Amino acid sequence: MRQEKDLIGVHDVPDDVYYGIQTLRAKENFPITGYHPHRELIRAIGMVKGAAAEANMHIGALSPTIGNAIIAASKELVGGRLQEQFVVDVIQGGAGTSFNMNANEVIANRAIEIIGGQKGEYFRVHPNTHVNMAQSTNDVFPTTIRIACLNVAHDLLTVLDELRQTFEDKAQEFDGVIKMGRTHLQDAVPIRLGQEFGAYSHMLGRDLNRIKAAIKSLEVINMGATAVGTGLNADPRYIEKVTELMQEWTGLPLRLAEDLVDATQNTDAFMEVSGSLRTLAVNLSKIANDLRLMASGPRTGFNELNLPPMQPGSSIMPGKVNPVIAEVVNQVAFQVQGNDFTIGLACGAGQLELNVMEPVVVFNLLQSLDILRNVIRVFRDRCISGITANEERCRVMVENSVGLVTAINPHVGYEVASTVAKEALLYGRPVAELVLERGILTKEELDLILNPYEMTRPGIAGVELLK
Amino acid sequence: MRQEKDLIGVHDVPDDVYYGIQTLRAKENFPITGYHPHRELIRAIGMVKGAAAEANMHIGALSPTIGNAIIAASKELVGGRLQEQFVVDVIQGGAGTSFNMNANEVIANRAIEIIGGQKGEYFRVHPNTHVNMAQSTNDVFPTTIRIACLNVAHDLLTVLDELRQTFEDKAQEFDGVIKMGRTHLQDAVPIRLGQEFGAYSHMLGRDLNRIKAAIKSLEVINMGATAVGTGLNADPRYIEKVTELMQEWTGLPLRLAEDLVDATQNTDAFMEVSGSLRTLAVNLSKIANDLRLMASGPRTGFNELNLPPMQPGSSIMPGKVNPVIAEVVNQVAFQVQGNDFTIGLACGAGQLELNVMEPVVVFNLLQSLDILRNVIRVFRDRCISGITANEERCRVMVENSVGLVTAINPHVGYEVASTVAKEALLYGRPVAELVLERGILTKEELDLILNPYEMTRPGIAGVELLK
Amino acid sequence: MRQEKDLIGVHDVPDDVYYGIQTLRAKENFPITGYHPHRELIRAIGMVKGAAAEANMHIGALSPTIGNAIIAASKELVGGRLQEQFVVDVIQGGAGTSFNMNANEVIANRAIEIIGGQKGEYFRVHPNTHVNMAQSTNDVFPTTIRIACLNVAHDLLTVLDELRQTFEDKAQEFDGVIKMGRTHLQDAVPIRLGQEFGAYSHMLGRDLNRIKAAIKSLEVINMGATAVGTGLNADPRYIEKVTELMQEWTGLPLRLAEDLVDATQNTDAFMEVSGSLRTLAVNLSKIANDLRLMASGPRTGFNELNLPPMQPGSSIMPGKVNPVIAEVVNQVAFQVQGNDFTIGLACGAGQLELNVMEPVVVFNLLQSLDILRNVIRVFRDRCISGITANEERCRVMVENSVGLVTAINPHVGYEVASTVAKEALLYGRPVAELVLERGILTKEELDLILNPYEMTRPGIAGVELLK
Amino acid sequence: MRQEKDLIGVHDVPDDVYYGIQTLRAKENFPITGYHPHRELIRAIGMVKGAAAEANMHIGALSPTIGNAIIAASKELVGGRLQEQFVVDVIQGGAGTSFNMNANEVIANRAIEIIGGQKGEYFRVHPNTHVNMAQSTNDVFPTTIRIACLNVAHDLLTVLDELRQTFEDKAQEFDGVIKMGRTHLQDAVPIRLGQEFGAYSHMLGRDLNRIKAAIKSLEVINMGATAVGTGLNADPRYIEKVTELMQEWTGLPLRLAEDLVDATQNTDAFMEVSGSLRTLAVNLSKIANDLRLMASGPRTGFNELNLPPMQPGSSIMPGKVNPVIAEVVNQVAFQVQGNDFTIGLACGAGQLELNVMEPVVVFNLLQSLDILRNVIRVFRDRCISGITANEERCRVMVENSVGLVTAINPHVGYEVASTVAKEALLYGRPVAELVLERGILTKEELDLILNPYEMTRPGIAGVELLK
Repeated sequence: MRQEKDLIGVHDVPDDVYYGIQTLRAKENFPITGYHPHRELIRAIGMVKGAAAEANMHIGALSPTIGNAIIAASKELVGGRLQEQFVVDVIQGGAGTSFNMNANEVIANRAIEIIGGQKGEYFRVHPNTHVNMAQSTNDVFPTTIRIACLNVAHDLLTVLDELRQTFEDKAQEFDGVIKMGRTHLQDAVPIRLGQEFGAYSHMLGRDLNRIKAAIKSLEVINMGATAVGTGLNADPRYIEKVTELMQEWTGLPLRLAEDLVDATQNTDAFMEVSGSLRTLAVNLSKIANDLRLMASGPRTGFNELNLPPMQPGSSIMPGKVNPVIAEVVNQVAFQVQGNDFTIGLACGAGQLELNVMEPVVVFNLLQSLDILRNVIRVFRDRCISGITANEERCRVMVENSVGLVTAINPHVGYEVASTVAKEALLYGRPVAELVLERGILTKEELDLILNPYEMTRPGIAGVELLK
Repeated sequence: MRQEKDLIGVHDVPDDVYYGIQTLRAKENFPITGYHPHRELIRAIGMVKGAAAEANMHIGALSPTIGNAIIAASKELVGGRLQEQFVVDVIQGGAGTSFNMNANEVIANRAIEIIGGQKGEYFRVHPNTHVNMAQSTNDVFPTTIRIACLNVAHDLLTVLDELRQTFEDKAQEFDGVIKMGRTHLQDAVPIRLGQEFGAYSHMLGRDLNRIKAAIKSLEVINMGATAVGTGLNADPRYIEKVTELMQEWTGLPLRLAEDLVDATQNTDAFMEVSGSLRTLAVNLSKIANDLRLMASGPRTGFNELNLPPMQPGSSIMPGKVNPVIAEVVNQVAFQVQGNDFTIGLACGAGQLELNVMEPVVVFNLLQSLDILRNVIRVFRDRCISGITANEERCRVMVENSVGLVTAINPHVGYEVASTVAKEALLYGRPVAELVLERGILTKEELDLILNPYEMTRPGIAGVELLK
Repeated sequence: MRQEKDLIGVHDVPDDVYYGIQTLRAKENFPITGYHPHRELIRAIGMVKGAAAEANMHIGALSPTIGNAIIAASKELVGGRLQEQFVVDVIQGGAGTSFNMNANEVIANRAIEIIGGQKGEYFRVHPNTHVNMAQSTNDVFPTTIRIACLNVAHDLLTVLDELRQTFEDKAQEFDGVIKMGRTHLQDAVPIRLGQEFGAYSHMLGRDLNRIKAAIKSLEVINMGATAVGTGLNADPRYIEKVTELMQEWTGLPLRLAEDLVDATQNTDAFMEVSGSLRTLAVNLSKIANDLRLMASGPRTGFNELNLPPMQPGSSIMPGKVNPVIAEVVNQVAFQVQGNDFTIGLACGAGQLELNVMEPVVVFNLLQSLDILRNVIRVFRDRCISGITANEERCRVMVENSVGLVTAINPHVGYEVASTVAKEALLYGRPVAELVLERGILTKEELDLILNPYEMTRPGIAGVELLK
Repeated sequence: MRQEKDLIGVHDVPDDVYYGIQTLRAKENFPITGYHPHRELIRAIGMVKGAAAEANMHIGALSPTIGNAIIAASKELVGGRLQEQFVVDVIQGGAGTSFNMNANEVIANRAIEIIGGQKGEYFRVHPNTHVNMAQSTNDVFPTTIRIACLNVAHDLLTVLDELRQTFEDKAQEFDGVIKMGRTHLQDAVPIRLGQEFGAYSHMLGRDLNRIKAAIKSLEVINMGATAVGTGLNADPRYIEKVTELMQEWTGLPLRLAEDLVDATQNTDAFMEVSGSLRTLAVNLSKIANDLRLMASGPRTGFNELNLPPMQPGSSIMPGKVNPVIAEVVNQVAFQVQGNDFTIGLACGAGQLELNVMEPVVVFNLLQSLDILRNVIRVFRDRCISGITANEERCRVMVENSVGLVTAINPHVGYEVASTVAKEALLYGRPVAELVLERGILTKEELDLILNPYEMTRPGIAGVELLK
C-alpha cells in the first residue's frame, strides 16, 4: 500500500496499481453498473493525453523528460494496454472528471516508472500539473468521446454497407419471384420479391448517408477550451498545435470548434448521432418484421421465404425453428431506441457552462454503436445471405388473389371492378373466371392485362387495348 | 373597450368579454397550439372557485353578497357555460396562473354583473382579493386538474369495461373454434379462438384495475396549500371546510394531502396515471395487431377471422377493405405513448417548491384520456362486436400443421418427434400420415392423441396410452 | 340529402356538402381527437390533385373538360378555400385513404358544379376514376405530407434564423459583461455574458443546418408509385410529367424517388425531420433553463440578468413576475419530444408494402413544426430581445469567487492553489487576500493574473510572469 | 471435445463444459452485448427446474433417480454455483429458449455426473425429455424472470425505505431552518428546510407503495402453461403441485395465473413494474436537481446547504468540489427512463400467443432494479446523511426577500401589496422598511405579520389584527 493525498484527505492505494487516490475515491463513489469503460474510450484518451503532452513540449511548457515519458505511457493506452487500470464505473458523477483523472493517474504513474521512479512519486510526473497540463475534463472528455465514437462508427458503417450490398444482391437473385404485395396486411397488387429486397437496400443506403453526415459533427473538437470554453490557462500556440497533433494521433479529420464556449457546453452532436442510429434501428426492425411475416408458417402463415435455420426453436415443440436472428435484430433496435431516449434526457440536462451528464451519454452511445455493428454482422451472415424464396407458393398466391382486379380497373372502371372483387371474395372464386363468365373482357384481353410481370412495372397493363 | 391595469401596466379590454387584463396578456403571450382548454377543466375550476367562496363565507372572510355572487358565477362554469371566455392556450408558461386568472377574472366579472355592476368594477368583486381568496394557482390548478382527470377517467373506465365484456362474450362465442396457435409467428400448437379472446378480456381486466388504482392518487388534493404548501394566508378552518365542500361540489371522494408542501410541488401522481394509460395503450395495440394479423389476406394471409367492413379501403384497388378501426387503435396507442413521454419530461422538470410545467402535463393527460375513451368506443362498436370467425379455414390449418407433433412428444420422445416433424416439413406431408406409415403409433392411438380439442386443454392428450 | 353508394352500401349525404359517402363514413368511423386537418395539408393535396389532372390531360388520359374542372377546383383548395369541407379526424385508420377520398370527393363535386352539374353526379366527374386517376393514397398522401411539411418548415427556419441573429446581437451587446462561469452549478472561472449568448447563437446555427439538411429528404416524392410502388396503372409519361408539374404547382425542388417501392413503404424521412426538431427542442430547452437560472431571484437567486416582465406571475404573491416565456419554451420542447416519440413508434410500424400509420405521423410532425415556429417567435419578441444584464452584480460575484484560483494555478502549482481555495472557502475570504497574506504572489503579479477580461480569453493570464 | 446433435446437425462441444450444443449455437448466434446473464436469473431458473422435477416425481412422471439428480443440480444453481456455464448473451433471439436450454443442458449434464455418468450421456438425463419435462420456455422463462425481479426488487425496497427514513430524519434536523421558498426559481414565500426534506420523504413513501403494488403483479406465474398457455403436455396434477412447490423453492407468495393463455402471451406486468421504477427515477432526479440547486455556489449560487465533499471536482480548478453523487443519481434516472422506453417497445411487440422479446425486457428491468438499488445506497450514505444547512445564509435571504409582501396581502389588499413589492424591487429596499415608511402598517403589526416561522404554517400571519 502507498498513501496518497488530495483535497479531501489521505487514502491508501494498493502498491501495484497505476491509478491513484482520485480514481479510488471515484471507484468507491460509483458502484453503479459494474461495467468497465469501453476499450475505445481508453484508447482515445491515450491519444488525447499523448497529443497534449507533445503540444506542451512543443511550446516549451513541458520538459522533454516528462513529456516523452507521458507520450510513451499514452502510447501504451493507445495500444490497448493497461485497460484493467480503468476501474471507475461507466455511470459516474462529475462530467467525466473521474475518467480523466483515472487516465491522468495511470499515465503519470506509468510515466514515473518509465523514467525510473516509483509509483506515487508525483513530484516526478504529476497527474494534474503535467499529464493534464493546459487541459480540463471539459475539453478532454468531449474530445475523447468523439474519437471513440468515430472509431466504432467506422466499423458500423463498414458492416452496414455490407448488409446493404447483400440486400442488393438478393434483390437481383429474387428479381423473377412474383408475389402478392400487401398493404394493411391485406392483398394488394403483385410485386417482385426482388423489388422488396431492393427497397431494403435503398433504405439502408439512406441510413448510411445519414450516419455519415451525423458523425461529421463529431469531428469538431474543443481541445484548449479548458474549464468553460474560454481557454483559461491554455496557451493559444498550444491550442493550435494540439489540434493539429490530434489528427496525427487519431488519423481522423478532426478540427477545432469555431466557438469553444459552445463546444464545451453543448452536446447536440451526440443527439444527432444517436438520432441517426435510432432511425437505422427502426429501419432494421422494419426489415426484421417483414422477414418474420414473410417466413411465417410454414403451414399456417405466409411462407413466402425461408430464413436459414440457426438453432432448434423450442424446448417443447419438436421440429420448430424460429426466426431468432430477425428477433435479435428487433431487440437490438429496441435497446438502441431506449439508449437514444436516455441520451436525449442527458443531453437535455446541460446547465450553463457544462453538461455534466456526458458519462451516461457516452455509455449509451458506444453501446448503441457496438450492438448495432454486432447485430448487423450476424443479420447478414446468419440470416439475409441464406434466405431462399418459395417461388411456387408466391406464384399461386398471386393467381388466386383478388387484388388482380386493380389491373382491370382502367379497362372497365372502378365500379365494375369493385363488383367483380366483391363477388370473387364472396364466392371464393378467381377474378379471371368471373370476368370471363360475365363477358366483361375476353380471354385474350385478360391474358394481356393480368400478366403478373407487367403488373409489377409502371404503366397500365394491356394499355394497347385502351386505344 | 374598458381599461384595466395590472403590475405591468394598462391594457384595453373589449367591453363584452368577461375575462380581463391578465387573461388578455396571457392570450397574447402564448399563441402556441391554438387549442381551447378542455371543457372538463373549465367545469372543474368552477367547482374549486365555488367551494372556496363557500368556505370563505363560512369562516366569515367573505361577505354573503360577494360570496353568493361568486358561487352563482362558478355554478355557471360547472354547468358548462362561459366556455368561450377561456381564451388562454393550453400550452402556457406560468404553472397555470393564466388559466387560474382567466377563471378569476371571468367569475369576478360575471359576479359583478349578478350583483348589478358593470364588468371591470373590481372594487365590487376582485379577481384576486375575492375570487382567489386564500388560494394560489399552486393549490387551485393541481386540484382542478385532478377533478377534470377523474371525471374523464370515469368515462374511460366505463367504455373500457364494456370492451372487456365484449371480448368475454366473444370468447364464449368462439369457444368452439379450434385454430393453430403461433409463437414467433411460426406454427405452434392448437388453441381455441375463444381462448385468445378470453386472454384479451383478462388483459383488459388488469388495465381496468391498474387505472382504477392509479387514479386513486388523484383524489388527494392540496386546497389551502397556497403558494408553496405552507398554507400561508389560508385559515386552518378554511382549509378543513373547503376540502369538505370540494366533495360536495364534485361528488368525488377527495381528501386533503397529508403533506401540503409535497402535494404542491410533486406531480408523480400524473405520471402514475399516465403510466397506467400507456400500459393500456400498449395492450390495445397488441390486440389490434393480432386482429390485423388474423384478418390478414383474405387470399394471401391468415384469414382466420373477419373484421366488419367499415369503409372502402383503397382509392385505387377496387373491393379492398382494410382493418381501419384496428389501425386507428394503433395510432391512438402511439399518441398516448408520446403523450406519456411528454408528461414524463414535464413531471421531471419540477424545481424546488413547484413544477411549473403542469399545463403541458394536463393537456396531454386529458388528451390521452379522451382519445382512449373515444377509440375504445369505436373499437368495440365498429370492430370487436362484429367479428366473425372462418371456422373451416381454422380447422383445416390445424389438421395440416406440423405443430401437432408436440402432442405425440410425450408418447414417442423428443427425438423421434423431431424426426417426424423434420420430414413432414421437408416432404410437405401431414404428421399423422407419417406417424402411421412409420408404424410409430396406431390409428387408434393417434385419434386419441390428436384430438384437437383435447390439445387445447391442460394435460397430455391420450395420457391413458402411457399407462 | 342526396344518396350515395359505395362498396359497403348506401348512405345519405347532406345536399350542401362537397364531400361524399366515403368521407362521411370516415367521419363516423374516427371520432377521435376532434382536430381539423392542418390547413397546409389541405392546400398541399390541392396541388397534388391539380398537377395530377394536368399530367393526365397532357398524356390524353383525361378530357380537357373534366381535367380543367378538376384543376379549377384544386386551385380553390390551394387558395385556402373549402377548408371546412375536410371533416375527417386527424387520427384516422387507413393510411390516409380517408383524407385522400375527402379531397377526391370535394374536388369532384366542386368540379361537377364548375361544369354545370349537381353535386353527386359522379358520372360527370368521378372521385376515383377522374380525380384520383393514376393515383393511389399511397403515393398521393406521402407526397402531400411532404409538401405541407416543407412549407411549414420554411416558416420555422425563418423565425429560427431570426432568433439566432438576436442571440448574436445580444452577444455583442453583452460582450463586456464579465460574470462567473459555472460548471456543475458550482463556481468555476470567469466568462463573458456575451460569450454565453454567442454559444446559444452558434448552437442554433447548427440546428438550422440540421433541419435544412433533414428536410432535403422530404423533397423526394413518389407520385406514380400507385398502390405499392410498382406503378401499376400509372403511365410512365404521366409519372414523368406529374413530377415536373409538381414543381410548378408547389414552387419546391421536388424530385422523383429513385426506387418507388422503397419510397412508398418507408417513412424514415419523417423520423429524420422529427429527429432534427427534437434536437432543436432540447437545445431551446437548454437555453430556456439557463435563462431561468440566470434570472433566478431576484433576491435569493443568481440575478445576473432580467427577462422582460410579460404578465403578473402570481395570483397570490403581489409583485411576483415569472419567466413565463422561457417556461412555455420548455413546455413546447417537451411536447415536441413526445411528438417525436409518437412519430418514432408510428414509423416503426410499417409492414411490407406500406406504413399505414402515416396520419398520426403527419399530425404530430406538423404540430411540432407549428408550435416550434410559434414559440420561437414569442421567445424572440417577448423575451430574448428585451433581456438586460445586471452588470454590477455579475462583477461583484466574479471578485468574490474562489474560482479565480484557477488562474493562479499555472503560477503556483495545483497543490498550493488547492490549499488557497480550501482556506478561502473555509474562512469565507477572498482568494486575492489570502494569496497576498501568505506571500504567494505580489500585488503586481496578482493584478496581472486576476484580470477578469484576460481570464475569459485563451492563454495563461500573466503568462509573462512565467518567463 | 464431445459431439452433440440437434435438429440442425452435429457440433463439437468442449468436454469440460456443462452446457451443450444448443447453448453453443446460441452463443454463436448472439454475440451482441457481451454481458453475462444476471446472477439472480440463473438462481431463479434453478428454482424453477428443481420445483418442476419435484412435481414430476410427485405425479410419477419422473423416476426418483433422475428426479433427485435434477433437483441436486438445480440446487447448485440456486446456491450460486455454475454461473460461468451460462454463456448466452443477455440479448438473444428466441424468447428465452436459449437461456432455458442453457439451463436444461447444464442441469442435465450436472445431473448425469451426479448419478455417475459422463457429460453428454443424455440417455441418462435428457435436457428436454427430463429437465424440461412438462415445461416450455414459454412458462419457464416468464416465471424465472418474475422470481429474479421479485428478489432484486426486495433489496431495492429495503434501501429505498432507508433513504426515505433518512429524509425524514433530516426533516426533523432541519425543522428550524427557515429559508425562502421559490417557485419558477423566483422568490416566493418562506418555508422551512425541514419541510422540503419532509416532502422528499413523503414522495419516496409513495414510490415505495407504488413499487410494492406493482411487483404484486409479478407474483402471478404460469407454470404448466407450456407452449401457448393451453397446458398441452402438462398434467393438471403437475400444474397444481409445481405451483405449490414454487412457493417453497422461492419463499415468495407465488400463485398460478387464472388464465394461462393470457399469462403466457402478455407482458404488461413488466411494463407496470418498469413504470413504477420510472416514476421513482423521475422523483429521485427531482430531489437531486433540488439539492444541486440549493448547494449551488458556494459564492455565486444559492448556497443554502452543503453536500458532503466526496472527491476533488476538477482536474484544472483547484479546490472545486462538485455534487457528484447527486449527478450520478440523475444519470441513473436517465438510464432507468431509457430502459423503461426499451421495455415499453419490447412489451408492445408481442404477437398472438407469445411475446418473443422478453430477453431484452428482463435485461433492462433487472438493470433498472440493480442500478436504482446501487445508486440509492450511495445517495443515502454519501450524500443525504451528510448534508448540512447554512442556516445564517438562509435566514438573511428570507429577511431581504420581497416575497414577504405576500404575508401583508390579507392586511392591505393585493393592489397596495403589489405597489410595495414593485418599489422594493425597483429601489432594492426591504419590504418592511417601505411598509413602515409609508405608514401602511405599524412596527408592532409588522412584527406579528412577518414572523417567519408563522409564515411557514397554515393561517394568516397576524390574523388577530384583522379582527
